[in-house]
Amino acid sequence: MSSPIDFYFDFSSPYGYLASTRIEAIAEKHGRTVNWQPILLGAIFKVSGQAPLTTYPLRGDYALHDFARAARENKTPFQMPDPFPVGAVAASRACCWLKASDDPQHDHARLTKFVHGIFHAFYVDNQNISDVEVVLAVAKSAQINTDAMAAGLADQSIKDALKSAVEQAIERGIFGSPTTVVDEELFWGSDRLEQVDRWLSRGGW
Amino acid sequence: MSSPIDFYFDFSSPYGYLASTRIEAIAEKHGRTVNWQPILLGAIFKVSGQAPLTTYPLRGDYALHDFARAARENKTPFQMPDPFPVGAVAASRACCWLKASDDPQHDHARLTKFVHGIFHAFYVDNQNISDVEVVLAVAKSAQINTDAMAAGLADQSIKDALKSAVEQAIERGIFGSPTTVVDEELFWGSDRLEQVDRWLSRGGW
Repeated sequence: MSSPIDFYFDFSSPYGYLASTRIEAIAEKHGRTVNWQPILLGAIFKVSGQAPLTTYPLRGDYALHDFARAARENKTPFQMPDPFPVGAVAASRACCWLKASDDPQHDHARLTKFVHGIFHAFYVDNQNISDVEVVLAVAKSAQINTDAMAAGLADQSIKDALKSAVEQAIERGIFGSPTTVVDEELFWGSDRLEQVDRWLSRGGW
Repeated sequence: MSSPIDFYFDFSSPYGYLASTRIEAIAEKHGRTVNWQPILLGAIFKVSGQAPLTTYPLRGDYALHDFARAARENKTPFQMPDPFPVGAVAASRACCWLKASDDPQHDHARLTKFVHGIFHAFYVDNQNISDVEVVLAVAKSAQINTDAMAAGLADQSIKDALKSAVEQAIERGIFGSPTTVVDEELFWGSDRLEQVDRWLSRGGW
């Protein structure tokens, strides 16, 4: 069995959302699974010297146009959320809690459903995913025990797990969302999924 | 006859080089020509708040890896020049001079040959293209009158032409290299050429 594809994303990244709707099909085509790896770009930008994409003159305007254009091409439902960007700490901690759980209820399928649910709440339903209540409502829709999740979000070990995950991502060279890692090979950007597909087909080049 | 594809690039941009080797085939496929538009990212970054790609922590290391990987995939000869980046003012002014000339010798085919020649000198032969002598040597290889070009490079109207071209690019929203513009639609990045191809095939979406 080949190792999973690590898919790093910030829930507040439109390109992360757009790629999240396509990465599983690519992984499946090559007999791989997707390891969802939420990260916080705010922490990473302090190291990389970058800022949120939409805050850059010229580049920000292009990004807004390009998000919508890329969504149209792939027929992915999308609207720019307002407010944007928002902090995805709670939603990301919730992922860490789901990954840390040894409860078989909280398995990979549920994490996958939760990830898609958060992205959908933000980019389709324009809900503010920085709000814990929104996060828990998405969890509920994914048949996750929300009382247990709420307790998990307040647990120091879960807070530490997210912090550690972000630090490990930085150590691995991750600086943007989405970043797809195939066997230690990094591909940054939702526009690199075709390249990821070719890399997997050829076993590199 | 459809309007030409505007291809904006900085000679000091590896992604600009990589895309320059592919843009003509895409244009030709759709009955278009390529309008070579040299720009100076140094001036643009002052407006957009960005810095040369390779100077960013994390992102810079990835870029160096990605330049070579992208070149390998497309079987494009490439080595990272040293020094890098360099100022492409002379080479860019030379393009403006070629474009401004009403001498039929200095036609589009010659400009195209010169653009490829400068990129090749920098990314294959590791020549310092900030050196006017290197620029003139490339021009000579493209059967361009180097005495006339040398005079043109010192001409205030040519200096102004490049300055004006960069300002017009900024007004158009150009912030990076390469940027391909099809009928006022901007596509940033060498990794967007497939998208440009699809856009041209479908007439947008």
